[in-house]
Amino acid sequence: MRLSPRHPRYESLVVRRSLADAHRSGLVVPEGLIAHGRGEAFDYFLGERTTPSARRAERAAAEWLYSARRPVVSVNGNVAALAAAEVARIARALPRAGVEVNLFHRTPARARQVARALRKAGVREVLGVRADARIPRLPSDRAWVDRRGLYRADVCLIPLEDGDRAQALRARGQKVISVDLNPLSRTSRTANLPIVDDVVRALGHIAGDLERLSAGGRLVRGRPFDARAALADALRTIDRRLIRAARAPRRKRRPRS
Amino acid sequence: MRLSPRHPRYESLVVRRSLADAHRSGLVVPEGLIAHGRGEAFDYFLGERTTPSARRAERAAAEWLYSARRPVVSVNGNVAALAAAEVARIARALPRAGVEVNLFHRTPARARQVARALRKAGVREVLGVRADARIPRLPSDRAWVDRRGLYRADVCLIPLEDGDRAQALRARGQKVISVDLNPLSRTSRTANLPIVDDVVRALGHIAGDLERLSAGGRLVRGRPFDARAALADALRTIDRRLIRAARAPRRKRRPRS
Repeated sequence: MRLSPRHPRYESLVVRRSLADAHRSGLVVPEGLIAHGRGEAFDYFLGERTTPSARRAERAAAEWLYSARRPVVSVNGNVAALAAAEVARIARALPRAGVEVNLFHRTPARARQVARALRKAGVREVLGVRADARIPRLPSDRAWVDRRGLYRADVCLIPLEDGDRAQALRARGQKVISVDLNPLSRTSRTANLPIVDDVVRALGHIAGDLERLSAGGRLVRGRPFDARAALADALRTIDRRLIRAARAPRRKRRPRS
Repeated sequence: MRLSPRHPRYESLVVRRSLADAHRSGLVVPEGLIAHGRGEAFDYFLGERTTPSARRAERAAAEWLYSARRPVVSVNGNVAALAAAEVARIARALPRAGVEVNLFHRTPARARQVARALRKAGVREVLGVRADARIPRLPSDRAWVDRRGLYRADVCLIPLEDGDRAQALRARGQKVISVDLNPLSRTSRTANLPIVDDVVRALGHIAGDLERLSAGGRLVRGRPFDARAALADALRTIDRRLIRAARAPRRKRRPRS
C-alpha cells in the first residue's frame, strides 16, 4: 500500500512502516514494536514536535558529548531501524565517539544485523557485536557491553534504553544522556540529562549541534543541566496540551481528496 | 515464560502475549502491535479500567445499536485477536447486527483468517471476506466494504478504526460508534459516540447491555450523547493521573537477581 503524503499523520505512518519492515527483516523484535507504540502515545501528548525544553537538552547533550573523553552512543534494534543515518552523522561529526550495539533481546545474529544497518548508513566502526565485558549487577544477557565502548565510556548517549541498564550505568558513575518520550520512565528519571523527544528528531538535532561545534562553534564546557526541571517541563507541556484539548471545540474536518 | 497472576500488570501482559501469538499466526500485522502499544500507554493513564464516563458511553452505544435498523460491527486483526468472544456475544444478543471483516492492511488470506477466528468464537455469518462495495473518497484497499454490511449500515460500531475511514463513514451520514483509547485520535474526534476504553472491556460491556435490552430491559430510544464532553472527561482523567504520577516519590529500585 502506498502512503499518501497528504494523510494528516503521514510522518508517523512512514515511521511505523519502516519499523514494521525492520521487524520483518528481524532487526526489530515484537517488543520493540509495542514499545514504539507506547512512545507514540507520549509524542501525541507532546504535540509530535521538539519542545523548546527538549531542544535545550539536545544542545546540552551535544556539548557534553563534545567535551567527553570517551563518548559512546548505544544503538538497539529500534534505533538502528529508525535513526541509523542520524547515528552516522553523530559519528562523522565526533569521530572519537564510539557506536555500540546494545540489545535487550540479544542474539549474535541480531547484533550483526544492527551493525550491518549502521555500517550501511556510514558508521565505520561498530562496537559491541562481540561484547566482551559485563556491567555489574545486571542479569544475564543484558549486562554484556564492549570493553572499548560502554564499559569505559565517560558519557553514554542511550536512546530508547531499558531502565535497569540506565541505572546500572549511572551507578558506575558514568554520565547518562537518555532519549525517551516518556518523562515518567525509569530511564528518564535516572538520566543525568534526559531528552524527552522522538529519537529521530533528537539524534538529528544533536548531530547538527555537533557539526556546528566541530566547525568551531561556541562551546560551554561542563554546562550544568537540571534534569528534574527538564522532566517537569515535559510534564507541564503534556498537561497544558491535555487541558487545552479537553476545552477545545471539535476540530473542523479537513478537506479530503 | 509463565506469567504470574500476582504480577501487578498481569492482565496487560496476558493481553500482550495473546497479541504476540496472534501476530506470529499472521492475524495481527506489525502495525497492529505498534497500535496496541500506543493503546497500552493511554490505558495506563486511564487507570487500566473503565471510567464512569466510558461506561455511560458503552450503555448509550448498546442503546444505539439496539435501536438501529442495520447495525454493523467492524472487526480488524487486533479486534479478532483480542475480543472475538465479545463480538460473538454481541452478535448473539443482537442477531440482526452484521459482523464485518474490515482490514486496513487487507489481503484475502488475512480476511479469511479474521473470519475464521470469528466463526471459531461463535459468530455465524461473517461479512466482508469478499468485499464488494466501496466507500467513496477513500484510497485503494481501505475503501472496500460489504454491500450487505458497512455499506448500508445505519449504525457502525468501529473498534480500533483508522481516522480516514471513520470520517468517510460519518461523511455518508452513518452513525459512528468508536472504541479507541486515544481521546485525541481522529477516530475518537470523528465518532458520534466515542468510547475511550479498552476494546475487550468495552465490547464486553456493550454485549452485557445488549443482553439486558433483549431480555426486556428499559430502552431509551435516540438518547442524545455529548461526544465532546466524553472526550473531555477522558482527557481530564489522563491529565489528573499523569500529574499525580509525576508527583509520586521516585519508585524504589526493585531487587535484581
